[in-house]
Amino acid sequence: MVAPLRVGIAGLGTVGAAVVRLIEEQARTLSARSGRGIRVVAVTARSKAKKRTLHLRGIDWVKSPLALANDPRIDCFVELMGGSGEPALSAIEAALKNGKSVVTANKALIAKHGLRLARAAEKHGGALNFEAAVGAAIPVIKTLREGLAGTGVNRVYGILNGTCNYILTRMEQEGLSFAECLKDAQRLGYAEANPSFDVDGHDTAQKLAILASLAFGTKVAQSAVYVEGISSIAPEDLRAADELGYRVKLLGVAVRTPKGIEQRVHPTMVPKSSSIAQVMGVTNAVTIDGEGIPAITLVGPGAGGAATASAVVADIADVARGIRAKPFGRPVDRLRDTKKAPMERHEGGYYIRLMARDLPGTVAKIATRLAKEKISLESVVQRHPEGVDATDAAKKASPVPVILITYATSEDAIHRALEAVQRDKVISGRPQVIRIEKN
Amino acid sequence: MVAPLRVGIAGLGTVGAAVVRLIEEQARTLSARSGRGIRVVAVTARSKAKKRTLHLRGIDWVKSPLALANDPRIDCFVELMGGSGEPALSAIEAALKNGKSVVTANKALIAKHGLRLARAAEKHGGALNFEAAVGAAIPVIKTLREGLAGTGVNRVYGILNGTCNYILTRMEQEGLSFAECLKDAQRLGYAEANPSFDVDGHDTAQKLAILASLAFGTKVAQSAVYVEGISSIAPEDLRAADELGYRVKLLGVAVRTPKGIEQRVHPTMVPKSSSIAQVMGVTNAVTIDGEGIPAITLVGPGAGGAATASAVVADIADVARGIRAKPFGRPVDRLRDTKKAPMERHEGGYYIRLMARDLPGTVAKIATRLAKEKISLESVVQRHPEGVDATDAAKKASPVPVILITYATSEDAIHRALEAVQRDKVISGRPQVIRIEKN
Repeated sequence: MVAPLRVGIAGLGTVGAAVVRLIEEQARTLSARSGRGIRVVAVTARSKAKKRTLHLRGIDWVKSPLALANDPRIDCFVELMGGSGEPALSAIEAALKNGKSVVTANKALIAKHGLRLARAAEKHGGALNFEAAVGAAIPVIKTLREGLAGTGVNRVYGILNGTCNYILTRMEQEGLSFAECLKDAQRLGYAEANPSFDVDGHDTAQKLAILASLAFGTKVAQSAVYVEGISSIAPEDLRAADELGYRVKLLGVAVRTPKGIEQRVHPTMVPKSSSIAQVMGVTNAVTIDGEGIPAITLVGPGAGGAATASAVVADIADVARGIRAKPFGRPVDRLRDTKKAPMERHEGGYYIRLMARDLPGTVAKIATRLAKEKISLESVVQRHPEGVDATDAAKKASPVPVILITYATSEDAIHRALEAVQRDKVISGRPQVIRIEKN
Repeated sequence: MVAPLRVGIAGLGTVGAAVVRLIEEQARTLSARSGRGIRVVAVTARSKAKKRTLHLRGIDWVKSPLALANDPRIDCFVELMGGSGEPALSAIEAALKNGKSVVTANKALIAKHGLRLARAAEKHGGALNFEAAVGAAIPVIKTLREGLAGTGVNRVYGILNGTCNYILTRMEQEGLSFAECLKDAQRLGYAEANPSFDVDGHDTAQKLAILASLAFGTKVAQSAVYVEGISSIAPEDLRAADELGYRVKLLGVAVRTPKGIEQRVHPTMVPKSSSIAQVMGVTNAVTIDGEGIPAITLVGPGAGGAATASAVVADIADVARGIRAKPFGRPVDRLRDTKKAPMERHEGGYYIRLMARDLPGTVAKIATRLAKEKISLESVVQRHPEGVDATDAAKKASPVPVILITYATSEDAIHRALEAVQRDKVISGRPQVIRIEKN
């Protein structure tokens, strides 16, 4: 009988507490599956005095994350404190240098310092597992790292932030504004008091950077990700999308192009018939386009204490079973530098909503500007406000929405054309532009 | 540098040839990911003389699967011949007894002899990997075996047969009959000349038996699976389902109940809003309900040479990396006997379509028979054929469809009630019954 794996947990918030409970409840199953027992022997957290429902009988309290990482009684250091820097970084590094394995749910840290930590893990022989960092219980890291070990990946994209998807779902289904839905999300605990990290796309960008590294064998590089959030999306965009057969989702997309790896986070129109379009509310989903095979989509809870704990415990079980995968799928020395494809050269279809002055020739002027940039239009819809007939509107020259869907073109061309349209003074306000992602 | 993993492949059909090619094309990536090279050193197949586009330079031809399994030059035996018995069984057993690892895509063999082979793998220290046996490139085996190692599973269900889903999708979208769609599926190569194995649900049953074992820690037992195919489904059932907010899918469902593990394959009404209902055409999908966490759904190609080869090569890469998971997640001795929940005691909602004689009191009689069995009705719809008014129809007493949706009740009660209805002679033909699965 192999000795049990001795686990130390730093951080006893919702996830940490759920991990302690799950390891206790599933003790028999875990030992059957891993071939050895798994025991939490020590923990640490910010406040020892804090009231917890969790029983810590038989578990030692250690004074700091670093002390826990250096504690010779543990084999596996589980970091559930969060934060892209200290004290998590030094503690994880110390644990790895001691030859221990590390399990973490910390996407910010892995996106920022993942390479340095992976190098330490490789050098000293421990595992560095972070399944919970992306998509919680959805086994997307394992799928990219092991399940598609022999298959090249052309594109990986997904809904990686439940807050944004919740807001977009409510906006679409109830015709509400972004601000109203954000307030509801905050009330329900789906969004933070400071929602910027989620709604401006940074959370998605960190997760995408990790997935891109695993998918393409490149160095994780959050700075290579182009980021746009969802705050500018209006109910009329969702309505127009619906009529055109699309839904709007905040996607993280990493794709191999002739110009390099494109990594981008932005509101995206996806065909209603695609798997990703069906994903509603706080649910997350990731689609992987492997070379020569149809897409694989993984759907499930992307956050929450129990779902995150499920992934953390699976990672611990892998450590117990003696699995030592390369953290990013390959040795750090074999990871290539990310050749960042410039966003200006992105190619795809675009949705454009303009508030055009309702005067004769306006649409013609707009179309001319687009034609000059060789942008072909799939559809043009000019909407007159309901209940007002064209002549009245024309008289008042009040702006009416014009919605354009383009065939594939470049980001550059779109920018130049829209700048020209603005110079023509035939529209009011800024154009709304949403990229289209086909499956 | 570790010596390369030496692979022998038995079977050079579509999948076998794709595996040989993929290992060659992805050689560098595979060696980076696995920490060692992977080389196909020997192959065998039914006919050496057969013309193949595949180049076998530098690869030895061995005279039989058994000779390959006993060949000391190989470390990993890859079985891609198929069939639930010989020659695959003896060859795999020999390879395992020689301490080699085995990778197979053979669901029939694993469903029938999986335990015996798992025991041999455990005893002699080799791996027995069969990711490709269920859902091809969809990493469902890995997810159940490793990704949810610490999470109890309450239910696993899915669309596991692309042929059936293709037929049901076409029937639904084009209003065609089962026979017409089957013929098309055969023409397109999605269905065999003898389609029974697919359309009668046996293929799904074999895959379900494997998933149930991994999900619940029970011995794989195909004989414990209740099986019903799709040949009795009529376009009018799909039309009625659509109107009621459902789709009909051939599901394999394994669920923990107070009476034991229920394993069943049958046409099933699923709510249109569920992830599984969105899965169209030959695509497969599996949903896993873990304890305390929202459902995880994996969607992708369930068949095809490239998709199957992708999973086979990932399994080989796991062998190269030294991973030796228990084939069914736990040691064979820890797998429990399947306590089969009898189908008569299944509980759920039902869709019932009857051809009722259009006479006064018919619906009342049917409702009374159901009430006697304490079956509550969610809805009753009686349809008069279009263009014929009720009085004319009544005069002719020609049968009209009556569609009932019940609340949760037992299979037993449904059978008793419908037998009584048949004795009343108020319906013609056999009642159509489709179980409803809620998410």
